[in-house]
Amino acid sequence: MKEDFFKKGARMIQENNNLEKLKEELLELYYLSSAVSVLHWDQEVYMPKKGSNLRAKTIAEMSGLIHNKFTSSQFGKLIKEAKIEMEKGKLDENNTCIVKEIWRQYSREKKLPVEFVKKMAELESKAQYIWTEARKKSNFKMFLPYLKKIIEMKREEAKFIGYNKNPYDILLDVYEPNVKSDEISLIFKELKDFLVPFLQKIKKSKVKINNKILKGNFEIEKQIEFNKFIAQKIGFDFDAGRLDISAHPFTNFSNPLDVRMTTRYKKDDLFYSLNSTIHETGHALYEQGLSVENFGTPLGESISLGIHESQSRMWENFIGKSLSFWKYFYPRIQKEFPVNFSNISQENFYKAINIVKPSFIRTEADEVTYNLHIIMRFEIEKDLIEGSIAVEDLPKIWNSKVKEYFGLEVPNDALGVLQDVHWSSGLIGYFPTYTLGNLYSAQFYNIAKRELLNLEKELAMGHFEHLLSWLRKNIHIHGKLFSADELVEKVTGEKLNSQYFINYIKDKYSKIYKLN
Amino acid sequence: MKEDFFKKGARMIQENNNLEKLKEELLELYYLSSAVSVLHWDQEVYMPKKGSNLRAKTIAEMSGLIHNKFTSSQFGKLIKEAKIEMEKGKLDENNTCIVKEIWRQYSREKKLPVEFVKKMAELESKAQYIWTEARKKSNFKMFLPYLKKIIEMKREEAKFIGYNKNPYDILLDVYEPNVKSDEISLIFKELKDFLVPFLQKIKKSKVKINNKILKGNFEIEKQIEFNKFIAQKIGFDFDAGRLDISAHPFTNFSNPLDVRMTTRYKKDDLFYSLNSTIHETGHALYEQGLSVENFGTPLGESISLGIHESQSRMWENFIGKSLSFWKYFYPRIQKEFPVNFSNISQENFYKAINIVKPSFIRTEADEVTYNLHIIMRFEIEKDLIEGSIAVEDLPKIWNSKVKEYFGLEVPNDALGVLQDVHWSSGLIGYFPTYTLGNLYSAQFYNIAKRELLNLEKELAMGHFEHLLSWLRKNIHIHGKLFSADELVEKVTGEKLNSQYFINYIKDKYSKIYKLN
Repeated sequence: MKEDFFKKGARMIQENNNLEKLKEELLELYYLSSAVSVLHWDQEVYMPKKGSNLRAKTIAEMSGLIHNKFTSSQFGKLIKEAKIEMEKGKLDENNTCIVKEIWRQYSREKKLPVEFVKKMAELESKAQYIWTEARKKSNFKMFLPYLKKIIEMKREEAKFIGYNKNPYDILLDVYEPNVKSDEISLIFKELKDFLVPFLQKIKKSKVKINNKILKGNFEIEKQIEFNKFIAQKIGFDFDAGRLDISAHPFTNFSNPLDVRMTTRYKKDDLFYSLNSTIHETGHALYEQGLSVENFGTPLGESISLGIHESQSRMWENFIGKSLSFWKYFYPRIQKEFPVNFSNISQENFYKAINIVKPSFIRTEADEVTYNLHIIMRFEIEKDLIEGSIAVEDLPKIWNSKVKEYFGLEVPNDALGVLQDVHWSSGLIGYFPTYTLGNLYSAQFYNIAKRELLNLEKELAMGHFEHLLSWLRKNIHIHGKLFSADELVEKVTGEKLNSQYFINYIKDKYSKIYKLN
Repeated sequence: MKEDFFKKGARMIQENNNLEKLKEELLELYYLSSAVSVLHWDQEVYMPKKGSNLRAKTIAEMSGLIHNKFTSSQFGKLIKEAKIEMEKGKLDENNTCIVKEIWRQYSREKKLPVEFVKKMAELESKAQYIWTEARKKSNFKMFLPYLKKIIEMKREEAKFIGYNKNPYDILLDVYEPNVKSDEISLIFKELKDFLVPFLQKIKKSKVKINNKILKGNFEIEKQIEFNKFIAQKIGFDFDAGRLDISAHPFTNFSNPLDVRMTTRYKKDDLFYSLNSTIHETGHALYEQGLSVENFGTPLGESISLGIHESQSRMWENFIGKSLSFWKYFYPRIQKEFPVNFSNISQENFYKAINIVKPSFIRTEADEVTYNLHIIMRFEIEKDLIEGSIAVEDLPKIWNSKVKEYFGLEVPNDALGVLQDVHWSSGLIGYFPTYTLGNLYSAQFYNIAKRELLNLEKELAMGHFEHLLSWLRKNIHIHGKLFSADELVEKVTGEKLNSQYFINYIKDKYSKIYKLN
């Protein structure tokens, strides 16, 4: 008996040692990644231009180091042993989450041959360059051979990883783990079936909105101040983050105590910066709300691109384009920019920032049409990966979808199939996360409004604390403890359901466009 | 014959492979160090304050990684084999430089037991904290036990490394390789023998300089512009570097194409920022002048602290406080800050920026008294390490030297022995490099003036290109190909000689103070 007890004790210590050692190694990997993160930020924001070449090499060197450490036999041994313990049910909930997620990443990375990864990286680098040129010239044929090769290699990737039903699921899994393309197809179809006819109604509405009233002359220094004011007011902690300028807005995070957003400014358009800033603040609040104690494990990391986008979209649209929000901020904007806004009523302002206008370019789309841009990309890339359409036919397919969904004729490929950087960068399976974000957001926000009885009144008085703590408690703090689908069910009591987004759009825009 | 030839060929390939592999490993180490460099810069300049804790850990993690890589058995094997080749005379001049320098660093690092290094790091960290408190309270006794321990461990360090004659040489060697304390003692004595009586003469001069005329109200934005204007004008490449703000000015470099300086601003004092900026530009021009092709080896690195300081001091003092320099810039300063300077003659301005005034604080010292601050520190730390004075007696010794050299009575230890951060940080052997920098600078500048016949005229017309190319060609581009003493001899044709600095000071200040 005694001997057994000791043996068991010794084994338990060994097990714990293994897990502790795994966590130590992980922590080192996270420190290195957070260093790379600062290098990336610096590159986009403050690096002198001649530094770019050696910076790229420095980042490549560090990424290689991280990859080698993560896929080393030493690390492999640790994660494999931890997985065995997990499968025996010996780990608690938190440790199970850590081991499961790390195993998911590790086994995926180990399944791809080194040669394949290198070839893919080279192809993407070339394809991006060619795509930039092809877009400039609006010449799809230039890009065609590269896109063909990318689709081919992405199908190969799915084979290396191994799939049951649909190769596209394997690609999706990188950005939105656990979600299957069949579910997405169903949900997106519901959404499309609502959006296409609804957009027709809006187009026929007698309400004509003039959003030119938003244009004017806005001193950049004052814009910067106002952007910072709004970000800080809705909860961004400037002692644990920054707001700077870069060509394309992004949010960069080393850890929850160092979260850096960027935006960009146009002298004639205050909302060019403001929309981006509120969107990025949504991302940044998520990152600032992650658990510092769990830094260095998946428990201290955001769940998925979709959940991330649910936070940015909630602040940008559900809140940042709502009447309540502007009840508080519009008088302040009028005070800061009197020449521009003193003669414009709050109602006309509200309508102008919510104008619905079908357009060719996804990144300029409004709340109603945005998801149609995503849905058509999802349909196309899924068909490409499944092999049911040919890459050669893309412009034709693209243009016919734009015609069907928006009622627009695409004038050229630069405004059509060549507009996004994603495919040239090998980001296939990425697009649907944008719309998933909108859907999650609607579903979360619906519950938030139910649980926070005075929410709209609070927003109208410039109080965002209750909403932010609600998001922190229900979403941010968990890290990856739940997958996206688990979180949605935990927070809202049901699975992902497009109806909340549909109702939100129907309600909001029926009022604005006086539909019935 | 044939067989022998093949054998030899095979061996040569193997040797080259070894050296190539060593260089590859080195390059990786330099990339990692350049990443750490960016993290340090960011920490001082833009990092949000809550990020400090995790940043410190990230830097520690990366430094540990670099140390482990550098002292690994794999790296050890490479450098040892390369050293054997070098000793057989099989390496060319450049490769010899690389192997010699890396061996110097490697063997030093390997001689110190890991436990000792850790203990030292802990002691320094504690001692710095205690020193900060002790300085606030002007209480040397608080700091005494820590300084005692530091001196003790520094003597132990010298023993671990091993020395022939003087343990202090071993400490000096970290900052100024190849220079021996006996030489420094001799040269510093000559300097002191000139400076102490010369300072007395200045004190007795009837010329009274009013430097209050430099004070005023200077808008920070305009100061920033003017600082950038001067830095750029004298040759700093803003496409390969930056000028930002931090509490203590410094120059940070990742590589010659990314060199970042900082300064700080006071509203009432333009020269508070300007002096620092010109000093840091001197450091930065050296870094921007290093060979990009040799990045990743000692051939792409600055020689020593002393040579670095020779560059910063040359621009700050020999040029930046010269009549010629201000012939060009003073009218421009008058134009930018008319309220402050329009009624002040160039002559009075020149005198004001060159006022000589003995003071307690080293960092506020003028060109004449500065080296006396350094000489007394050198004398004291050398005696401490040799054991000829006791740490307990420091305040007494310090104050009597200040009395002897400056004719001042030290009112308290905060203004005396506790003023510098160096000793608490374990930086013993560092101080002399400041004065070496001044001496090198005078000797270099003397030759530059002889070789560039119109130098002073050019400076007075705002042309700094010839001087900069001269510095690039003669000093910057070589990296560590020569040691400091070799470089001085190569450039000036003789060994380090204090007479050039003495002549420079005598000449300049005899005119200003009308001495004879």
